[in-house]
Amino acid sequence: MSTERRVSFLASVREGIEGFASRSPSRFAILVFASLIALFTALLAQPFASASGTPTNFADALFTAVSTICVAGLSTLDMATYWSPLGNALIFTGTQIGALGVLTLASILGTIISGRLGLRTRLIAASDTNPLRLHSGPVAEGQAIRLSEVGGLLATVALSLIIIETVIAALMLPSVLAAGYSLPDSLWYSFYYSAMAFTNTGFTPNIGGLSPFVTDYWFLTLIMIGVILGSVGFPVIYALSRNLRNPRRWSLHVKMTLFTWSILWVGGIVAYLLLEPSNSLVFTGMSPGELTYQATFLSTMARSGGFNIVDISQLDSSTLLFTDMLMFIGGGSASTAGGIKVTTFAVLILAALAEARGRQSIEAFQRRIPGDVLRLAVSVGLWGATTVAMGTLIISEFTDAPFEYVLFDVISGFATVGMSTGVAAELPDPGVYVLALVMFMGRVGTVTLAAALAANQVGQYFTRPEERPIVG
Amino acid sequence: MSTERRVSFLASVREGIEGFASRSPSRFAILVFASLIALFTALLAQPFASASGTPTNFADALFTAVSTICVAGLSTLDMATYWSPLGNALIFTGTQIGALGVLTLASILGTIISGRLGLRTRLIAASDTNPLRLHSGPVAEGQAIRLSEVGGLLATVALSLIIIETVIAALMLPSVLAAGYSLPDSLWYSFYYSAMAFTNTGFTPNIGGLSPFVTDYWFLTLIMIGVILGSVGFPVIYALSRNLRNPRRWSLHVKMTLFTWSILWVGGIVAYLLLEPSNSLVFTGMSPGELTYQATFLSTMARSGGFNIVDISQLDSSTLLFTDMLMFIGGGSASTAGGIKVTTFAVLILAALAEARGRQSIEAFQRRIPGDVLRLAVSVGLWGATTVAMGTLIISEFTDAPFEYVLFDVISGFATVGMSTGVAAELPDPGVYVLALVMFMGRVGTVTLAAALAANQVGQYFTRPEERPIVG
Ligand SMILES: [K+]
Ligand SMILES: [K+]
Repeated sequence: MSTERRVSFLASVREGIEGFASRSPSRFAILVFASLIALFTALLAQPFASASGTPTNFADALFTAVSTICVAGLSTLDMATYWSPLGNALIFTGTQIGALGVLTLASILGTIISGRLGLRTRLIAASDTNPLRLHSGPVAEGQAIRLSEVGGLLATVALSLIIIETVIAALMLPSVLAAGYSLPDSLWYSFYYSAMAFTNTGFTPNIGGLSPFVTDYWFLTLIMIGVILGSVGFPVIYALSRNLRNPRRWSLHVKMTLFTWSILWVGGIVAYLLLEPSNSLVFTGMSPGELTYQATFLSTMARSGGFNIVDISQLDSSTLLFTDMLMFIGGGSASTAGGIKVTTFAVLILAALAEARGRQSIEAFQRRIPGDVLRLAVSVGLWGATTVAMGTLIISEFTDAPFEYVLFDVISGFATVGMSTGVAAELPDPGVYVLALVMFMGRVGTVTLAAALAANQVGQYFTRPEERPIVG
Repeated sequence: MSTERRVSFLASVREGIEGFASRSPSRFAILVFASLIALFTALLAQPFASASGTPTNFADALFTAVSTICVAGLSTLDMATYWSPLGNALIFTGTQIGALGVLTLASILGTIISGRLGLRTRLIAASDTNPLRLHSGPVAEGQAIRLSEVGGLLATVALSLIIIETVIAALMLPSVLAAGYSLPDSLWYSFYYSAMAFTNTGFTPNIGGLSPFVTDYWFLTLIMIGVILGSVGFPVIYALSRNLRNPRRWSLHVKMTLFTWSILWVGGIVAYLLLEPSNSLVFTGMSPGELTYQATFLSTMARSGGFNIVDISQLDSSTLLFTDMLMFIGGGSASTAGGIKVTTFAVLILAALAEARGRQSIEAFQRRIPGDVLRLAVSVGLWGATTVAMGTLIISEFTDAPFEYVLFDVISGFATVGMSTGVAAELPDPGVYVLALVMFMGRVGTVTLAAALAANQVGQYFTRPEERPIVG
């Protein structure tokens, strides 16, 4: 092949990808994630990736790859000892690629959702709370996203990720050194923990996981800050970085995300304080301050950080159920957190409140949310409920574990939280495949579904007569 | 007091009630149910109501009263032996009053939901698929329901109930005689079973419950027919009785109810056949025909009949979870069944499908369903999910039973199904109160909530600027 022909071949590949990505960005996102998972499964299955130097069986390699690329943090293996240094480096890299991918793709898909624009929204979207605005001229309309814009956005996301992770890792280093690790180990562990926090993955690199740090509130608080920054979502981080002191310029999305995220966070802390102390083997004998800190940590991690310093299977079943709810709702849109997302939940609640208050329209922060956003939220909510229900139905066929444990691990997988009651680690291969699929559907499904539906609107040239069924 | 003054006093009481009922029909419905429960609690607590002739403790009397008036069928006592004949007669009467009350009130409240009328809907509402049309001139607008119309509707409902229950009881009599009971017992049991089927209560009068009839497919099929007629709802029965062979005249509500009810019914049968045989201790060794019949019976009863011929606690946890879903959805609006109702579920699914197909409006059977009906459906769905979640959280504090049993009994209570894994019967008093409250919120809440919200609409004189958050 001559150079000229090769260039034109590459150009046409590029054009093909660009065409596919802009015609069907949701399918493109699914394809990107599936390809990454296939690649990492193949790599992790190789002998060089395991500490023992033997090939890893397919189910475990696939599960780890899905858990890594989906930044879920569930595992079927002991992550601290099973992998070789190269395997660990692969996993670290996988979480970074997974996080970059989900932040970038979800930010792009999010603009499709806010892409059915009215005039006023067009002006708001063109303001600097919209990350896509940064590197290109006018805001792309609807589906028409170009790869060049994706490149620009990817650079912005990657820069944010590197800055945040490096700062947190630097602040963590003294703690890790103080825990007695060598300087090289401490550097690696600091970066690893910082990355696992910001990407909301929750893997731990050292034997014993967080146990050397259970009383190191500086370290644990840094973990929480990383998890929180990752889970509010890139559009929020971007808006805050530009307009931290000027809340008037925040978009509705930013306000709704921060408000709902905070309510659920504080509500989670209060609920854990109410539910757990009287029942659990976990929190007995703690001082009120310690108890509040533990409740805060658990409430933060339930939103999909996935680090845990308590034995989840020791928690009371009310606490597990409450955690199920927090996990299912998850974090912000276009974030490293999973779940149906706080804005989805907020739109559903706002719809119910609008009815209760007798309003004709759904409103928040002096803005009206159009009816089709409610339909998107209903779709995402049903998608989540169906995935969790089917996953639980099928996985409970493969295990004798108590039902609340199965439900917990399935929701933890769906919402890519990664806390586990121990079910995930003991599933037979078919169960491992199902749980991997649940993670994929949770991570990639929720992110692509709303955008796919929003992009899918067709004009309608006639109106049917209206009729009301009785509901309730 | 002179006769004249007494008459005017009664007239003003009547006017007061009428005023309250028409100003706030939802609150009126709640008040009616609460008063009936208070009355039946007081009566059932008396010595004459129990077989032992001793007073019944308050928690059990209240729970039985709630379960009776809400036609739920859960019990904390052995219903076949605990009550005296007079107690049994009270409970029988209670279920009839409860069923009449819920059918009538929910039919009225349903017209409020379909009361925000467009011109075409007005014409449909005025057709003879609307039971309120029968006894008064033009269809009452919105909340303006008069007691005289309620009287007429109540008479129609009562007549339907008596006809259906008598026919089924008569057909049941040979079976009950064949099981070896005396003629008076058989007459009483036939009526009792027929009534418990049509009202979807599920209490059984004889020791051993359905066990003498486990192979009597005639009897079991009659039970199923009774349960199905009760659970599709009065508006459907009424429309079918008038236009059985003319489906074109059925309202959207009737079509949606029948369609969704049937899909869930058949889906339930198929799912039980797939889920249960390989796992359960219950269905092993059955012939395919017998298995299909059992699956059909279970699928029917899960929609809130509540009779069971298998030991629920022996079912596999996947089967329990699937049954949870069927129960939560429940039966038709303005029926003796509970749950969030099939039309509520259908509207949520249709909204998701409309998005998936890229349609701007929610459509079914060539009709457009307005957006506020979706908001009502979201409200009812969230009400249900919240009630079940809170009920499960609280009740699991009072019992050591496995989580799936607690969840099952709470959903069974919320959806007034009455199947039990045994948790209800073993709760301490505080847990009994909570479960009674869950039944009340499930029965009265779902019925009144949508109507209260629909009646509550206020005009809005300005429009806020539109903005779209990202969801999913
Ligand atoms: K995670
Ligand atoms: K029942």
